[in-house]
Amino acid sequence: MKKLAFGIDIGGINTAFGLVDEKGELFANSVISTKAYPNYSDYPQYINDLAEAMKVLVHSVNFEFELIGIGIGAPNANYYNGTVETPANLWKYTNKEVAAGLKEEDRIFHFAEDLGKHFLNVPVYITNDANAATIGEMVYGGAKGMKDFIMITLGTGVGSGFVANGELIYGHDGFAGEFGHVIVERGGRQCGCGRKGCLETYTSAIGIKRTAFELLSTMNDPSPLRDLSFNQVDSAMIAQFAAKGDEISKEAFRLTGQKLGYALADAVTITSPEAIFIFGGLAKAGEILFNPIKWYMEENMLMAFKNKVKVLPSELQNKNAAILGASALVWQAK
Amino acid sequence: MKKLAFGIDIGGINTAFGLVDEKGELFANSVISTKAYPNYSDYPQYINDLAEAMKVLVHSVNFEFELIGIGIGAPNANYYNGTVETPANLWKYTNKEVAAGLKEEDRIFHFAEDLGKHFLNVPVYITNDANAATIGEMVYGGAKGMKDFIMITLGTGVGSGFVANGELIYGHDGFAGEFGHVIVERGGRQCGCGRKGCLETYTSAIGIKRTAFELLSTMNDPSPLRDLSFNQVDSAMIAQFAAKGDEISKEAFRLTGQKLGYALADAVTITSPEAIFIFGGLAKAGEILFNPIKWYMEENMLMAFKNKVKVLPSELQNKNAAILGASALVWQAK
Repeated sequence: MKKLAFGIDIGGINTAFGLVDEKGELFANSVISTKAYPNYSDYPQYINDLAEAMKVLVHSVNFEFELIGIGIGAPNANYYNGTVETPANLWKYTNKEVAAGLKEEDRIFHFAEDLGKHFLNVPVYITNDANAATIGEMVYGGAKGMKDFIMITLGTGVGSGFVANGELIYGHDGFAGEFGHVIVERGGRQCGCGRKGCLETYTSAIGIKRTAFELLSTMNDPSPLRDLSFNQVDSAMIAQFAAKGDEISKEAFRLTGQKLGYALADAVTITSPEAIFIFGGLAKAGEILFNPIKWYMEENMLMAFKNKVKVLPSELQNKNAAILGASALVWQAK
Repeated sequence: MKKLAFGIDIGGINTAFGLVDEKGELFANSVISTKAYPNYSDYPQYINDLAEAMKVLVHSVNFEFELIGIGIGAPNANYYNGTVETPANLWKYTNKEVAAGLKEEDRIFHFAEDLGKHFLNVPVYITNDANAATIGEMVYGGAKGMKDFIMITLGTGVGSGFVANGELIYGHDGFAGEFGHVIVERGGRQCGCGRKGCLETYTSAIGIKRTAFELLSTMNDPSPLRDLSFNQVDSAMIAQFAAKGDEISKEAFRLTGQKLGYALADAVTITSPEAIFIFGGLAKAGEILFNPIKWYMEENMLMAFKNKVKVLPSELQNKNAAILGASALVWQAK
């Protein structure tokens, strides 16, 4: 009988899920709202409704198959504990709950266990979104057969997954791979994590926007960006302006690639990867981002590593990457 | 029959070697000069003489044992290839050889194979000195039972070994773990690697001396260092002066710990280790080094990792660490 795995991608707005075979083919997929369950007290209902929607999807498939596991990618997920721990944008306390003394550090969701109750004898795996993408690249994508590589995800934040000796590095507590939070400018830009100068404040989709707006102050060139507010602009627009020759947008990409290239040269000294994959919306900008990443990485590379490390776009880029990545957790565990 | 492994530590001055059991007990050890074989053409004779000296040591042991392997720690060693590649201070070309067109990139020694010819059917493993120390810590030392830890060696340079999922990270080419060459000050101090601002230019035994001499220019305090030349001073003297209250030496330790603490906070985001071990001469300075390392590491740590990562002195510190580390390669491979 054909074997399929569930892949579930939990975002702040939607939860997307699908049934995937071991080659990465997606046979059915669906979505429920995450945003409709904003509060801590909504979480049990969310789990119930997600499980119901998953069962509906199972019945929609018009051939018999064996469900061999459920893989989940979620923010702040811990692989070892099967938990989602204090996620910034999910299932938050109300002011009342905070006033009643509920503590943020106790806002821990035993997601794998809670969802698993609805699917008896089906193993459930959970990890953070960047780790899921990394395993997806390894199982279905460009990293197939590689034992040592790095995945960098450029989204609202910057995530990462490091693979060494053929295994994802989870670290002793399950929280490894937070490369978006290496400090690249001491005392630099304010980061959501409460510190300053983290890589993601420069090279995420929001980071490049911050850079473009900084350049509006330091450069004199005319630019379509000068007629738009900060809240109106997104990284895709900056990519479009750059493609049309806007100097400020082009410079924003150069500086973004520089910061990432420098940081990657340092990361290479630690794990000496065969390749670095770049994933996420910003990666779609193509050469204008990849060229400066490569140039500044090589310029700063220790001799032993020069011209050895490939920098590649993720091959999962346009194929329901998040669902595939999550489902890959199941195949990887086999 | 008792089983023993050879551990061999190849330094620029001496080659130390010994016979070690799987608990890390050293049964016999000896040494030959490395310095007496300075040239490329001396290498075959060096291998012969080392093998002879090893055989003499084998016969000196007054009980029967089985030699189960040979482990070697050497600069620029590659675990996968069994080679020592372009080592800066070993078996160099003469000017004549350079003039004759011999290329630096071909100065590669097939050490494991060459030594192995003298010990038929005994497996030979080689890796760089810091990796050997890391495996020594894992097999015999404080990292016993740990699956995720970092080893930092503070010597003439700064070396490192990263262990994740219970395995040393060699990287795809065998050269991983060059943490001494992450850039901590862009455009900073000149490094032996040809770049600028590498961690080891600040936190090696020579790095702290450079810092102390920089402080002679920026501070006004009297100091015994003001009566000594750069070439007269070593890191042990700076530690002694600091212990006696010398402000400049104390400040040099603080700044060294700061640079290392900052860099370690970044490394933790990648591998999330249970502990970081500090090894080498400088580590013997104790609290005056460990306190600032811990303080600045914690100050810069991402919330998820705060107060979780132990910083510990290597437990191999005073026990023929380099020989033990090299021999551990053999037990690790079993």
